[in-house]
Amino acid sequence: MSERIYTAGLVVIGDEILSGRTHDKNIAQVASWLQVQGIRLAEVRVVPDVIERIVEAVNALREANDYVFTTGGIGPTHDDITVDAVAKALGVPVIVHPKARAILETYYADKGGLTDARLRMARVPEGAELIANRMSGAPGIRIANVHLMAGVPHITAGMLDALTGTLKGGKPLISETVGCWTPESEVADILRQVEQAHASCQIGSYPFFRDGRVGANFVVRSTDEGELKSCVDSLCDGLASAGFEFTPGGI
Amino acid sequence: MSERIYTAGLVVIGDEILSGRTHDKNIAQVASWLQVQGIRLAEVRVVPDVIERIVEAVNALREANDYVFTTGGIGPTHDDITVDAVAKALGVPVIVHPKARAILETYYADKGGLTDARLRMARVPEGAELIANRMSGAPGIRIANVHLMAGVPHITAGMLDALTGTLKGGKPLISETVGCWTPESEVADILRQVEQAHASCQIGSYPFFRDGRVGANFVVRSTDEGELKSCVDSLCDGLASAGFEFTPGGI
Repeated sequence: MSERIYTAGLVVIGDEILSGRTHDKNIAQVASWLQVQGIRLAEVRVVPDVIERIVEAVNALREANDYVFTTGGIGPTHDDITVDAVAKALGVPVIVHPKARAILETYYADKGGLTDARLRMARVPEGAELIANRMSGAPGIRIANVHLMAGVPHITAGMLDALTGTLKGGKPLISETVGCWTPESEVADILRQVEQAHASCQIGSYPFFRDGRVGANFVVRSTDEGELKSCVDSLCDGLASAGFEFTPGGI
Repeated sequence: MSERIYTAGLVVIGDEILSGRTHDKNIAQVASWLQVQGIRLAEVRVVPDVIERIVEAVNALREANDYVFTTGGIGPTHDDITVDAVAKALGVPVIVHPKARAILETYYADKGGLTDARLRMARVPEGAELIANRMSGAPGIRIANVHLMAGVPHITAGMLDALTGTLKGGKPLISETVGCWTPESEVADILRQVEQAHASCQIGSYPFFRDGRVGANFVVRSTDEGELKSCVDSLCDGLASAGFEFTPGGI
């Protein structure tokens, strides 16, 4: 009985990420949110503010996944070209969305009115719906399986919140962590054996160096709570039998 | 006189990034390092611990760029499959590198010796050279234009340090920032006009919300110092003429 797995791709748009100037926070936030929706983030592409590069990434990821999300490039300035790129990717024209225009008119009523630049934020690929943005005026945009969100992380967070529960997903992937103050190379055999014995679980090993000591966290993932528990138990038994001390919940 | 632009692609390998569990730090660190080498980061792909997905990303990015970097998946555990994936992408077998083996034998001499799991870290695609790792035993790997680096950020940093100055690059992209405590929508026209008047410069606009106020930083980028200065001067003049206060250096 194999379960349908829902996947998503994320396109992070912005020269500021590729230059190293801005540290991306959206990958982790979108990834964590998707987990709760029962959707697996299958790939992320970070691309520059160049129409053709955005079109290419959006098309590759929307064909390979159930959903695509984009972050960045939906503001009022000349470098905000995500709407144009997604419209091109989908082969539809760009129009001004009447409701987006109304939202912006209200939002900017006491802030100098709706200038041409601000009106850019009402532009959408034809056929799109809006994603509510409680943080600032400009809405996010949803068209087909593509979701266009802001680049500023707390605005993105608000848009994700507005989308919560609206996307069809599978069973969420759940995880449990076990930590060890030991080099992962010493427990590599145990990890491999335990994973092989539990086909529906994956074990990731994440080494770290902290306070001058070496350790690793082992993250067991599954969509099945019972299988997850059984795998974690086997892992703890294996570590204990071999004489390793471990910390349930991770270090 | 158009200058050769050198580009790189980065493949970030790891389920832990795609699950949202780990916040990636390597994109920003590799991006910043590349800037100094005169190499532009053209695309990043984050892919799961699945051989075929790594192969696909490495092949796509090595064909489109002068250099490719990978982070993650070169440790001793069963989920460390980057070496196998890159070997497959390049169509070469995986071998044990004699020097890598010797390094690991020395490193683990007083730590329980070179187990099978640890020996995994001496495996390289045939024809590869090593990248020094002063932080821990296992070296990075360089083959053709592909550079395999650690996932743990401070080990990656050490490997980048070892590579500094060894890659051919162009003129580094330099940048200057001007900040304004004003919504970017109010200065969008000025930004567009100034950018259009300075063909060799790009201006990125990065809005923020801080201390309850709205502002934006405008980052002007160019490989030419004179053009950069001229563009920044025009931008400041434009902002001043329109009555906006601005902060050279950014906010």
